[in-house]
Parts: sequence; C-alpha cells; structure tokens
Amino acid sequence: MGVWPMPRDTRPERDPDMIIIMKPGASNEQVEHVVQLVREFGLKENILQGTDRTVIAAIGDKRAVDKGAIETAPGVEKVMAIFSAYKMVSKEVIREKTAIEIGPDKFPIGGRKVGLIAGPCAVESRDQLLRTADAVKSAGAIGLRGGAYKPRTSPYSFQGMREEGLEILAEARDLTGLAVVTEVIGLESLPLVEQYADVLQIGARNMQNYPLLEAVGKSSKPVLLKRGISATLDEWLLAAEYVVNGGNASVILCERGIRTYEQYVRNTLALAVVPELNDRTHLPVVVDPSHGTGHARLVPAMCRAAVAAGADGLLVECHIDPEHAASDGAQTITPAALAEVMQQARRIAEAIGREM
Amino acid sequence: MGVWPMPRDTRPERDPDMIIIMKPGASNEQVEHVVQLVREFGLKENILQGTDRTVIAAIGDKRAVDKGAIETAPGVEKVMAIFSAYKMVSKEVIREKTAIEIGPDKFPIGGRKVGLIAGPCAVESRDQLLRTADAVKSAGAIGLRGGAYKPRTSPYSFQGMREEGLEILAEARDLTGLAVVTEVIGLESLPLVEQYADVLQIGARNMQNYPLLEAVGKSSKPVLLKRGISATLDEWLLAAEYVVNGGNASVILCERGIRTYEQYVRNTLALAVVPELNDRTHLPVVVDPSHGTGHARLVPAMCRAAVAAGADGLLVECHIDPEHAASDGAQTITPAALAEVMQQARRIAEAIGREM
Amino acid sequence: MGVWPMPRDTRPERDPDMIIIMKPGASNEQVEHVVQLVREFGLKENILQGTDRTVIAAIGDKRAVDKGAIETAPGVEKVMAIFSAYKMVSKEVIREKTAIEIGPDKFPIGGRKVGLIAGPCAVESRDQLLRTADAVKSAGAIGLRGGAYKPRTSPYSFQGMREEGLEILAEARDLTGLAVVTEVIGLESLPLVEQYADVLQIGARNMQNYPLLEAVGKSSKPVLLKRGISATLDEWLLAAEYVVNGGNASVILCERGIRTYEQYVRNTLALAVVPELNDRTHLPVVVDPSHGTGHARLVPAMCRAAVAAGADGLLVECHIDPEHAASDGAQTITPAALAEVMQQARRIAEAIGREM
Amino acid sequence: MGVWPMPRDTRPERDPDMIIIMKPGASNEQVEHVVQLVREFGLKENILQGTDRTVIAAIGDKRAVDKGAIETAPGVEKVMAIFSAYKMVSKEVIREKTAIEIGPDKFPIGGRKVGLIAGPCAVESRDQLLRTADAVKSAGAIGLRGGAYKPRTSPYSFQGMREEGLEILAEARDLTGLAVVTEVIGLESLPLVEQYADVLQIGARNMQNYPLLEAVGKSSKPVLLKRGISATLDEWLLAAEYVVNGGNASVILCERGIRTYEQYVRNTLALAVVPELNDRTHLPVVVDPSHGTGHARLVPAMCRAAVAAGADGLLVECHIDPEHAASDGAQTITPAALAEVMQQARRIAEAIGREM
Repeated sequence: MGVWPMPRDTRPERDPDMIIIMKPGASNEQVEHVVQLVREFGLKENILQGTDRTVIAAIGDKRAVDKGAIETAPGVEKVMAIFSAYKMVSKEVIREKTAIEIGPDKFPIGGRKVGLIAGPCAVESRDQLLRTADAVKSAGAIGLRGGAYKPRTSPYSFQGMREEGLEILAEARDLTGLAVVTEVIGLESLPLVEQYADVLQIGARNMQNYPLLEAVGKSSKPVLLKRGISATLDEWLLAAEYVVNGGNASVILCERGIRTYEQYVRNTLALAVVPELNDRTHLPVVVDPSHGTGHARLVPAMCRAAVAAGADGLLVECHIDPEHAASDGAQTITPAALAEVMQQARRIAEAIGREM
Repeated sequence: MGVWPMPRDTRPERDPDMIIIMKPGASNEQVEHVVQLVREFGLKENILQGTDRTVIAAIGDKRAVDKGAIETAPGVEKVMAIFSAYKMVSKEVIREKTAIEIGPDKFPIGGRKVGLIAGPCAVESRDQLLRTADAVKSAGAIGLRGGAYKPRTSPYSFQGMREEGLEILAEARDLTGLAVVTEVIGLESLPLVEQYADVLQIGARNMQNYPLLEAVGKSSKPVLLKRGISATLDEWLLAAEYVVNGGNASVILCERGIRTYEQYVRNTLALAVVPELNDRTHLPVVVDPSHGTGHARLVPAMCRAAVAAGADGLLVECHIDPEHAASDGAQTITPAALAEVMQQARRIAEAIGREM
Repeated sequence: MGVWPMPRDTRPERDPDMIIIMKPGASNEQVEHVVQLVREFGLKENILQGTDRTVIAAIGDKRAVDKGAIETAPGVEKVMAIFSAYKMVSKEVIREKTAIEIGPDKFPIGGRKVGLIAGPCAVESRDQLLRTADAVKSAGAIGLRGGAYKPRTSPYSFQGMREEGLEILAEARDLTGLAVVTEVIGLESLPLVEQYADVLQIGARNMQNYPLLEAVGKSSKPVLLKRGISATLDEWLLAAEYVVNGGNASVILCERGIRTYEQYVRNTLALAVVPELNDRTHLPVVVDPSHGTGHARLVPAMCRAAVAAGADGLLVECHIDPEHAASDGAQTITPAALAEVMQQARRIAEAIGREM
Repeated sequence: MGVWPMPRDTRPERDPDMIIIMKPGASNEQVEHVVQLVREFGLKENILQGTDRTVIAAIGDKRAVDKGAIETAPGVEKVMAIFSAYKMVSKEVIREKTAIEIGPDKFPIGGRKVGLIAGPCAVESRDQLLRTADAVKSAGAIGLRGGAYKPRTSPYSFQGMREEGLEILAEARDLTGLAVVTEVIGLESLPLVEQYADVLQIGARNMQNYPLLEAVGKSSKPVLLKRGISATLDEWLLAAEYVVNGGNASVILCERGIRTYEQYVRNTLALAVVPELNDRTHLPVVVDPSHGTGHARLVPAMCRAAVAAGADGLLVECHIDPEHAASDGAQTITPAALAEVMQQARRIAEAIGREM
C-alpha cells in the first residue's frame, strides 16, 4: 500500500551531515546500533573516540533525512545537524547577488541602487491611494505598497477593498509608473492579484503556507517574501526555496521585525539579518521599518539604519492622513516625514558606495 | 469609489475602550484634537486630569476600531486598548465549558473525561498505521492522529501520502472506532480531508491562514486549532473566533509549545495557558507535549503535567518504530511508553476529580 | 607582565569537543591553518571530507577553551561546541539524586517526599509573618519563605525590613519548626543573612553575580539558586557549578519562569525543565509557580502541574491578606487557597509514587 | 514591631495611575471594595461605566505603590499601570541630552560627535593591550575598553588579570590619552577599579545588582550601564535611576543585544532602542555591536547601522590577533577592519549632521 518509506538511497541528494553524540558509558552494542541506522540512511560513519564518550559523524551525500529519529536510539544523547537544507537560494549555488526587476520601469532590487517602496497599509479609497501614490513618488519611491486583501487578526476588522482595491492600484501605477506591491492571501484570489500586481507580497503570517508558496512558485511575477513573525533564517530561506524550487527565481526577502519580549515596539527589528543574509543567499533583502517597530516616531531612524546595514530596499507605510488610516495608523508616517528621511537615507547610501 | 471608511457608527458593536495618555505638557489644543478624534469614532471621552498629564478614557460601545491611529496625533504619548476583540469564544458569552463530541463514539472533549489522541506524525504505510492504531487504542486513546498532508519546512522533505493516507486513516477508524484527527493544509485539499476526517486539524503554521479558517468555519466537522508558534492568547482566540464566526462552533484549542530562547527543547510548553484559557473561553483545551518539547524523553512528564494543569485532552505522537519514523522521530514515543504514562495520567486525572 | 595566556596545555582538563565546519571551497591552506590552531589547543584533529566541504572534529581532553576564536580564521563557516562545561553538578559525576536537608527538621529536598516552602514575598511586620507562618505550617509547608532584603526594580519601592526582618523570620522558625528560606542580595549582608537563614536564596537577578556565587560557595548553608530570567540551562548549571566548585555541594535549583513574548503572565513557567534537569543533574529541583505566572488565579494549577512533572518541591507566595501585600500581591495566594491546592498536590504526588 | 506598612500617604510622591478593569457582572459591592482600596492608597477614583463592565481609573499623585495587590480583590479582571516609575533619568525632568565627559581629553559622549570606544574583551598581557591601544587610537577611538575583572559563565574560564590588568590599562591611557572603560563586577573590587578607570562599566549580568548600582551611584566616575540580557526599557531606566538617585548623574546607557529565539547571532541587536531612548531619557546611548551580534563578520554593518540610528557612541571589541583572544574571539575584529568601518561610520555620521 504505502509508498513510504521510499528507498533511502533514492531521496534527494544533499548532505545530511549529522553529528551523533553518545551518552558517556554508552555500550558498544549501542554504538553499533547507531552505526547501523547511519548506514541505513546510505551514509558512512566516522567514529571519534573522546575521553568521556563516543561521537559519530556522518558526513555524507544525502540531505533530506529526518535526523531526529536517531535521537531515540538507546545510548544517544543528542543529534546535531550541521547544515541547512536550502540549496537553490544559497550563495553556494549562485555567488553574485541577484537583481530582480520590478514594475514598468524595471527597477532592479538588489542592484547598486537602494529602492524605496511606500504606500498605505490598505487601499481605502481611490482618492486616498492616488494622492498617496503621488506623494511617495515625489519622495523618491519606485514602488507603491497597498493592501487590497488584508489578513486581519480579528474577523471584525476591515478586510480590504479586494478587486476594487486592485483596480485602484493599477490606476495608480498607470499614472505614476510605480511598481505595485500588494499582498496575496490565498490561492483563490491569486489569479486576480497576479493580474494587477507587479510584485506578489507574501505576508508574515503566510510565510509557511506551503500551498501558497508553491502556487506563487509557478507565477511569472516577482515575490516579496516577508519573514514570519518568529521565523528562523533557515525556515525563511527554506520558504524562499519552495518558491524557487517551484520555478520562480525572483524572490525578494523582507525583514519586518520578529516577536520578542520587547513591548515598546510592535516587533523587534533584527537588522543584523541584513549582513547575515548577504552572506548566505544571493537573493535581495529589503527592510520594513513600519511593521519592524510599530510606531511612526521610530520609523525614520530605522530607515536610516537599514540602509546603513546594507538593505537593498525599504518598505514603508505612508498615508496622507495617518490619524484616519483604516489600519496600522500608529506605524504610518506622512509624506512629509518620508521625504525628509529619504534625504538622509540618500546620503547614507552614498556613504557606503550606493545610491538611492 | 472606495466603500471605506465605512461610517464609523455602523461598525460592529463592541467596546473599543481606549486609554489615551497625553504627553506631559500637551496643550489644550492637542487634548481637544484627540477628543474630536474620539468623538469621530462614535465614542464619549472621559478626561482625567493627573498631576503631570492628561489621560483620556474612551469607554464606549464599539470595538473594531484601529486604536493605533490616534497615537500619531500631536501630544499623544501612547494609546492602550483594554479589551480583546474576541466575543463568541469568550466566557462572557457562554459561561459553561463546551464539550465537543468527536468520532464514531462521540467522545466529549471538554467533559469530565480527559481524552487521549495519539498516533504517528505522518501516515507512512497501511501496516505502520494500523499497527499503531491498535497499540494506541489499547493504551486508552479515543482518537488517532496522523498526517496525510504534511506541511514541511523544507520542500525536499516527505510531504505525506495524501489521499492514500486518508483512506488508511479511515480504515483504521473502521477497525478501531478511534476518531480520526488529521491536518488540513489548504482549501484545495479541504473537501477530501473533510470527507475522511472526524476532526480537522489546523496546524500551528496555519493559525492565521484566514481563508482556511473561514473555510473550516463552514464545515460540519469539529476543528482542532493549534496555537501558532508565537501566537499571543488574543491572536489565538481571534483565530478561533474566525471559525466560530463562520458558523462552526466546534473548536478545540491545542497548546503545542511556543518559540522562546530555549534551545534544549524544540518549543517551550507554556502550561499556564491551560488555566488561563479555562478562565477566558468556553472552548476545550488539549495539550500536545510532543511538539511542546521535541524530545521523547520529556513527553511523559509533560503528559502528566498537562493533565494536572487541567487539560481536556492530550495529543501525543506515538509510532511503533520511532527510530524509523519519516518525520518527528525525536519526539515520538513507543506504544509501551504511552501505555505507561497513561496509567499515571489516569491517576492524576482522578486526583483532580476527573477521569481518563 | 601578563600571566595570560596560560600555556594552553595546563588549562583545566575537560573535553572541548569542537566541530569546525569549513566553507565550501575553503583552501587546503585554510584547513591546514585551522588544524594548527586546534593543535595549539592541545587537541587532536579528525578531518572529515564531505562532498561539499570539510569538517574538522576536535574531540580531545581539555574543556575550558574559548572555541569562538577559531571562527575568525579564514575559510571557517562556523564552530559548534558539543558539550557543556559543567562537571560537578552533572549526572556524569554523581548518578543518584542528591537530597539536601533543610531546617531544624532536616527535611530532605530531593528525596521521595515533595516539600512545600511558602510564605510572603517580603517580611512586612511581626504580626503578618507569624500569622502567615502558622497558616502555611497548617497547610503542610516544611519551609517558610520571606524576604528581608528585597532586590526591587525601582529604587523607590519598599526595600525590605533587613535585620529586623531576619529576626522575625528566626522567631517564626523557633515557633513553627519551619526552615527559613530567605534571599541574600550581596556580600555585605551575607554574614547577617547566613546567621539567621536555613537556606540562602539567590534570586533570579543574581544568578550570574559571580562574586556572590563564590561567597555562598564558602557557606555551610544550603543554597536555593533561582534560574535567571532568561538563563539557558547551561548558564544555570554553570552558576550552580560556581557554588559547588567553591565548596558548597548543597544547591537546590529553582525554576521560576522565563521571559518570553507572552504578556498574560509575568513569566512563562517552562515545566519541561524539570524532567530535563532530572536527566542532566543530580541536584534537586523546585518550582516557583508564583513568579512563574504572576497571577494568583494561575498558581494552583501550576502547583499541581509542577508536582506531576516531577518537581522535588514548591516555592509559593502566600500572605494572610494579599490585597495589602507590600510587594507581589497579584501573585500571592491566601492560606485557604494554599491548603486546598495542597490536598490536590498530595494526591498527585501519590499518583506518581511520591508523597507530599 | 514592623515598620511596614509605612503610612500610605508618606510614600514617595509619584503618579501611580492605575486603570482597574472589573469583570463583566462585577457587583456593586465589589466595585465599592476596590474604591476603598484605591482610597487607602491616598488616591482618588474615577468610575467609568462601560456597556459591559466598570473601569476605575485612579489618576493620582503618588507612584511607588504595588499596583498588583488590587488584582486579587474579588471581581477585578486586571490592573494596568500606565506610567513608569523612573523620574530623574526621564526627559520629563531634563529635556536636553546630557553630554558626559570621559577620559583625560574629556570627550563628551552625548554631544554632536559620536565616540568610538574599542579594545579587547580582556586584558591578556601588557604587550597585547598596548599594541591594541595604539591600533584603536589610530583608527579614531577616544576610549579603550578591556576587562581586568571578567564575569565568566563558567568557573573554569579565564577570570581576568585583575589589579595587574588595571595597571596595564592605566599605562595605556598614559601613553595614548584614551579614556579607560573597564568593568566592575562587585563591591569588593570597586575601590581598586575606581582608582584606575575613567568609566565604570556595569555588565549586562549586573544590570540589576542593586547594591552595586547603589555603590557606583556614590562614585565620581561616569558609569556605562549595559542593558541586561532580557531587560525591558523600564527595568533598564530604573537601573539607571538607582545610580542617579545615588548621586551620580553621569550614566551612559549601552545597548548590547537582547536574548531572543534567534540562533545565528549571540544576541539580537535591537537598534530601535536608540531612537526610543532618545525620546524617553536625556542620558546618552552607545551601542555594542560585538556582543550585539557575536560574530566579527556582522560587526561592521551593525557599527554603521548604529551610527545611522543615532547612537552617541560605539563600543567595539578589537584585538590585534582575534584567533588567539582569550575570550570573545568570535566577535572580535582586527584593527584593520576597525579602521575600515570607521571611515564609513564617519561619512554616515556626517550624513545625519554629526561627526565622528
């Protein structure tokens, strides 16, 4: 009946690279049993005899194995994996940073120029959006953000203008030349969003929505993949791997803050992720200081810091009237504040040999 | 033409209940401006004059307002919401605990008896599942867990047996009478899963997949809603509210550990959530000590602790051969270990006036 | 003239046990350079050649080396330590659980009986303390907690009754036979506290106050060492190692909740730590559900869960009039509530083959 | 006997500012009882009647009250404090940023110029320190860091050269003019450290070591107060308040990363704290990207980001030979790397209207 377990030696070829640490006093039989398990995985064991205990290193040639199972074998203290399972998004595969062109003007995110994407949390009305689009264009944006489908924590909150919102976004693009970056929240609405958007945003809550990742992996539109609210780098890069593995190599990573014990911010903006990702992956990295802090008063400093840290772009919530924004008002800045921070950000970009 | 903002006084009727704290030295004009904003929300202000500053309390009769927007008004230091937005899942609405009947034997989760749901992480083969089902039935289980669709962090990991897995689960139910609890990972596969399952499991990664929550809200099958990996209680209860608001009142909450700085466990099992949920909601609460710790050696103690804390059920990963499990092997216990812990758990249930 | 670096081969003898992972494409020279560094540490290298990269395992006989330095060598991707540095507190050294006798009645914490230590956060007055001592004794306590020196977050908060408080505690012991457990906050007050106390409590904020740990390491009184608010298990056990290494083998570990993103509790009580510590160390483990939750309403369920998880004792805040407690009122239960939870806890202890 | 409770109306005068939320259905008697408790605190109640429940605001004139106690009164759902207890470090008291002069050259930390403090984790030898001091001076540093007393997680690790280390630091100051910044780990060694140091560093582990804070509060030397590893802003500012309240107004705050679930870094550097502190306190803020990341490869980008975010200084670990550093080698950069990052940091400082 079952097709699983598939024969262990036909699994995808990657390094599993396990270090198995035996308990002090583990018996020879226990060591031998673990060696058998290692060999079942198609791996070769290296037995290292310490003063206190035995360590078995299995440095092999297949990666997608569930290392954990060996932990339950008698005499095993712990099992450590030493490599991540992502491959196509890794710098080991492509050494140069990938620049991803977005919008009518094909602005290359990941190139020498740092790109600003700005706009309201949600499309609320034609007037609101068009006026905001004009304002962010003037401030120097190359992309327009704005949600037409809103994933809201409460079922009673405003859920977005949906298709009507998409139409307004498209009109704004036609008028301004800005790339439209908007969220897709499910397979049902994907065809419609794909039709209007220049960049498909996957929100933090959907970072591990695998059917959705597989679906945008088949799209021809670039994907902006937000980090999940408490995602590790490996989980995030593996989510990107789903999209790339599905056939869509145009993935932009977006750091938007993580959940920690801190309470004066909505999220903790973990900017060290920028140089770390630049070490690990060829994909471009943008930063969202709006969700990354939750407070308009902190957004300008974090825009500056993100550019200084080496981000390829900024994603900023901006609204012509934040006090009356339908959502995320507290973290939304005005066009005037955006224009001011852009002047500083530009000088910082130049200080590190880039432009904005 | 946007339909938003909808007139503020037609929004759902709940308390918004904001406390707005002005900066020391805020001017009368600034206070007056905030009062205007409060009134725009259809609320009545209460102005409290402290020695250092002014506090404005808006205790009103509408809840689904984005409180944050007021934070950007001049002179405002911070805005505090004082109530959650969930309603139907709250004990304010239904004071008695809801018992939800599952499976062919209509076992009431949330009643006096504590229910054990056990089984492998994934259905791997007919033989593996049927033997495990027999074993967990003997140990005292009333439900059988097992994934046919697996949301996997890596695209290269085993993704589940899908429909074939569902058929095997159904066969196991027919043979044992156990309720089948299995995960649904997307709208596409929901109709099929719904056809075979007794309980639809929403995994931690999908806790805020709102289209999916809305869809299972229209199902006639009970839903087991796992807590998101770093979800707050409010976010979790609002996710449950999505399901109940959609028309399906049969929601079982499942604590499965949260992400913290701790590294010796896969997740930190936050058991105080059990008495807290028993205070806040009428929905039953089960605990998953397998994901909640990540290590088989810790599972028995956490099964005992969960029952002692007042859980209505346990969800435990059990496999006839954990060393060869296709996934989650490290946190999977044997049928023998399960049987042993059940004996202790039963005595603990009796110690607090319940049965198991 | 500096005495450091001490010759590498005279450092304390423990396993350093490093796994050094080279970058893909690291050159032979880079590998050779790392091997040289490993040998400088007095270790022997094991070179494992994978398909993608080289892994160097240094499984040796010296432990207290700063592994990190090798990370900065060219071509190194990362360095993993595989063992902890604690030794004397480890089960590798002493396999049986240590029972530590406390108070006039020499109650053995860590024996078959689970011990209850209860009392107010702070000694506030003679009347308050003596009445509370009577009440907790009646409920079944074997120890009396109560702070005479209070480490307070704010300099403006009540700092404790100091020597007068110690005298009252001693009087309570004389009247009831309860062991006095009280906090020591610095070297200055240690001699005085030592004179009155039966158990020296090291608070969470002082878990890594090394001069204090060294000082109580020279005391003849048992030490109750609380886990730091975000301490890892290794950090906590190494703090215990400081005390034991100083000459005082009587250390009781106390889990009191950790800081996480959760906000409905003051701390997240991480009960899986109980079975984990029982695996790693021979020292007894008690649980403080008062600080571990921060709310009186959650304390009884967490007392039950802690006993079920295998704790050797409970440390509970109890006050004859919680509404008027000088500190920690919100997490303090009444004597009546304590008596009730003890009845349940006793039955749970019996359910797992212990007594209380 | 007891002096506590002190009469409630003689406690320090600050706003307690409690919001007490009653349960839905709380009785009039319960509301009345809470009002009595509020009045006992010397406060005046404001009763706000919502549709579902009663809210009692106590906006008064005394701050140092334990708000929590009221939570245990019957019918109370929760109690919220709305202000912090710090006062002297607050911008409410001093609106202009305080510049604190350090070292022989009286460099003003908190002025227009951003200051670099660099040096090894620990003083290891005279040669190592003097050569490093020269190198960091050349790179543009105005201060020299280096530990003579090392708080080490393991009792078996190198604990510092102690007085000999202090002498070497003083010699380096005499030769270079750099301000000596070195850690004080306890009251015992404070007099000696005070004699040699220009700035007394309080490490993260001692941020809530109140006897030590009180002691440095009596010193004439400036204090560099590191944030505790999981300290909230309120806890950190209250620790600073201890020092200032003790009589020493010269406190420099130092962000050094917080503990989160992230594992690719030693700590998560939470840079939004810089603008937030600039809003709340007049004290200067420096950033330590070495502890803040734990990896030399991430330090340069975080130096740049910290300056861009508005930090008043950087504290960087630098060693002439990181591979052989006695501690913290992995996060230590070379003088060459330091010189390079300083060139960029200088241009970034200029981009935001400062100098470096």
